[in-house]
Amino acid sequence: MTLYVNLAELLGTRIEQGFYRPGDRLPSVRALSTEHGVSLSTVQQAYRVLEDNGLAMPKPKSGYFVPVSRELPDLPAIGRPAQRPVDISQWDQVLELIRAVPRKDVVQLGRGMPDIHSPTMKPLLRSLAQISRRQDMPGLYYDNIYGNLALREQIARLLLDSGCQLGANDLIVTTGCHEALSVSIRATCEPGDIVAVDSPSFHGAMQTLKGLGMKAMEIPTDPLTGISLDALELALEQWPIKAIQLTPSCNNPLGYIMPEANKRALLTLAQRFDVAIIEDDVYGDLAYTYPRPRTIKSFDEDGRVLLCSSFSKTLAPGLRVGWVAPGRYLERVLHMKYISTGSTAPQPQIAIAEFLKNGHFEPHLRRMRTQYQRNRDVMIDWVSRYFPSGTRASRPRGSFMLWVELPEGFDTLKLNRVLHDRGVQVAVGSIFSASGKYRNCLRMNYAAKPTAQIEEAVRKVGAAAIALLNETHGDGV
Amino acid sequence: MTLYVNLAELLGTRIEQGFYRPGDRLPSVRALSTEHGVSLSTVQQAYRVLEDNGLAMPKPKSGYFVPVSRELPDLPAIGRPAQRPVDISQWDQVLELIRAVPRKDVVQLGRGMPDIHSPTMKPLLRSLAQISRRQDMPGLYYDNIYGNLALREQIARLLLDSGCQLGANDLIVTTGCHEALSVSIRATCEPGDIVAVDSPSFHGAMQTLKGLGMKAMEIPTDPLTGISLDALELALEQWPIKAIQLTPSCNNPLGYIMPEANKRALLTLAQRFDVAIIEDDVYGDLAYTYPRPRTIKSFDEDGRVLLCSSFSKTLAPGLRVGWVAPGRYLERVLHMKYISTGSTAPQPQIAIAEFLKNGHFEPHLRRMRTQYQRNRDVMIDWVSRYFPSGTRASRPRGSFMLWVELPEGFDTLKLNRVLHDRGVQVAVGSIFSASGKYRNCLRMNYAAKPTAQIEEAVRKVGAAAIALLNETHGDGV
Repeated sequence: MTLYVNLAELLGTRIEQGFYRPGDRLPSVRALSTEHGVSLSTVQQAYRVLEDNGLAMPKPKSGYFVPVSRELPDLPAIGRPAQRPVDISQWDQVLELIRAVPRKDVVQLGRGMPDIHSPTMKPLLRSLAQISRRQDMPGLYYDNIYGNLALREQIARLLLDSGCQLGANDLIVTTGCHEALSVSIRATCEPGDIVAVDSPSFHGAMQTLKGLGMKAMEIPTDPLTGISLDALELALEQWPIKAIQLTPSCNNPLGYIMPEANKRALLTLAQRFDVAIIEDDVYGDLAYTYPRPRTIKSFDEDGRVLLCSSFSKTLAPGLRVGWVAPGRYLERVLHMKYISTGSTAPQPQIAIAEFLKNGHFEPHLRRMRTQYQRNRDVMIDWVSRYFPSGTRASRPRGSFMLWVELPEGFDTLKLNRVLHDRGVQVAVGSIFSASGKYRNCLRMNYAAKPTAQIEEAVRKVGAAAIALLNETHGDGV
Repeated sequence: MTLYVNLAELLGTRIEQGFYRPGDRLPSVRALSTEHGVSLSTVQQAYRVLEDNGLAMPKPKSGYFVPVSRELPDLPAIGRPAQRPVDISQWDQVLELIRAVPRKDVVQLGRGMPDIHSPTMKPLLRSLAQISRRQDMPGLYYDNIYGNLALREQIARLLLDSGCQLGANDLIVTTGCHEALSVSIRATCEPGDIVAVDSPSFHGAMQTLKGLGMKAMEIPTDPLTGISLDALELALEQWPIKAIQLTPSCNNPLGYIMPEANKRALLTLAQRFDVAIIEDDVYGDLAYTYPRPRTIKSFDEDGRVLLCSSFSKTLAPGLRVGWVAPGRYLERVLHMKYISTGSTAPQPQIAIAEFLKNGHFEPHLRRMRTQYQRNRDVMIDWVSRYFPSGTRASRPRGSFMLWVELPEGFDTLKLNRVLHDRGVQVAVGSIFSASGKYRNCLRMNYAAKPTAQIEEAVRKVGAAAIALLNETHGDGV
């Protein structure tokens, strides 16, 4: 598996970075086979991955080409966060996002909500309903502190797809990935400690650091390959960093998949400096390529990686079922889990275990991956059409969120206030930075099937951005 | 309301403490009316409360008497915890209790599980099932960070019964009372801080202090009137205590209801020393007397009381729905809630809101209160019959748990190991102390309707205790 995935990653990155331009012919199968010392069929497999990902198209008898239709916005610039640990701010903006009640008259493009309306969800809803009707009422008891055993067995099986060989007893079920991250941070760090994070980074994890009195060291992150290993190494040399917290597969908000080689190198760095890695894999199963990317955890040999995930993005967030594979920190994570919420609600656990056991999860994932990949292209197209020229956008390789960068100095907080009266909201970029960077960026959700209403909402965002930019120019600012 | 409740408390305490013995005639209605300067009907109301509570019985034309049949075990002694703040131990014993998976062949008398098999639960189960079948799938979304509004409105209405005048926006829904306590502690204290607790005290709250690097100052606690105010005052004078955490109504594990006057005095103490009060009211609605006791929160004027509760004991723990009324700490509790689990699962919230709105909760509570009170008398009777002579026991005035004290030097950890092979488990007393006191005590659950199987289990506990005591005497220890 690793060989062709590696090759696909390498070629994909070169295409994304512009070494091959739209319309260019890509190297022949034979040439690549010779260059990389791999079999012809390995190269063919790699090209199939690139095809699935919209990065290569075959022409009969001529080989593979970069699709000409790809006139994509430029990639976002690599961020330049503060080169020192900082206290985390931005709680007010996060609160604005999470206190919002879903309203029918507002198109909420800001939240990390998956599409829950797929017919492949039906067996899960059926299970949920049935459990409440069972005579023995298994949904009402205190569960074992580790979580439902049948579910943990299913999760262990699922983890094989990401290269992890774990047993049910290596796992603790949590109240969503949020709790998994929170207990992992508390199990590895203490107040005052410094945690290195990718940048931009998930606000939930950063606000946890804030709440626990820790500091964040934001590491510059490439929109295609993820956290900069050079910058991380420098930071590890300079500061007494205790843990690295990041989302390497289908990153939130940038959508990249960190190459396997980088994942291994990151682990080596963590070993050298003896720090823990808190790996958020909540979007990993939604990679557009198959098989899904390996986790850093899958390379872990000394139990220093705490793998955190949930069914919030693959099934539904309202279930509040996540898990953590805490490696050597198991005992401490167990204590932190107990003092956080006691045990996890059993009803959704039982329902999800049945859903997985009866083979409903794989077809569901396949369907959602295809839908999200298709929606991504539509969303990027809308941004190209409706946003100010010069707007940059990410190239998500999984999940359902697009990161959009407007010209420097643009204020998305102001944009969101304007949009509020027009019935649209986006996630402002500043919440993805510990120190309020990325104020000119925003994140939009493309999970739901594209409709005229959503297109209109995106058009409104673009039009409001253009108006704000003109206003600024008019002011001579 | 306050007058007759106060009077009933006063008389009840005198009876429990033995000022009036079984068979004694109690003061006449007229005499009490004169003595306390209250109306005759107030005294009559007070006697009705005592009657409900099994402490007084009327004889036609002769007045009220202490029931002769009451040959109760002596009350447990007041604990003598360390007179200084301590680091919390006992995690291993707690873990043993909470990692246990419910098994049909083990009678688990140790856990805080209510009886969930009452027919009055049916409307709730129906709602839970129906929500999963609704077209708009409200159970699958992220909820507002505060929790479901309809539920918060119902909780605010419910809180009126305990004398609290709060609005929906004063409340935050949590993942069980466990999370409510955890976020309250984190919102008011920092690592290294000292928290005063009643003793014996709920292990979950103490383990939270441990997990957060705080120390517990155990305050001697009377088995009838609760935490000693004199000892608390002394501790507040001696140590830089940041918060007081206690369960004043239907205490776990002792079952007492702290008199209203003591609750007020505690609040005055907290004001004088400017400390927060974290009030666990999770059993308060299960008081055997009606109206239910007032909370300390109901007297709170400057927002220093954080009231924590849940539906885990009144409905079912598997629902994982609790709440906190954090007073002046609301903003900080909100942040702690967000970083702990994000939002709370909406499905059980919606179901409980419907259950309350449709008037199903009051009849359910009435039924459970009556059942638990009846079961208490049965359980005390079993302990009198099957346990070693000299065994002491609490007089729970609410909830469904009995605290049993065996002779000093007795080891309930050893007892539980013996019982394990006989298919019975109890909660060992040492987990209710920060420093492993109460090793000669245990807690037993009497929620379920008494059956021959449960009686047999209690008989086994008693027999094993007698055998262990004889063994010790045989050793000459």
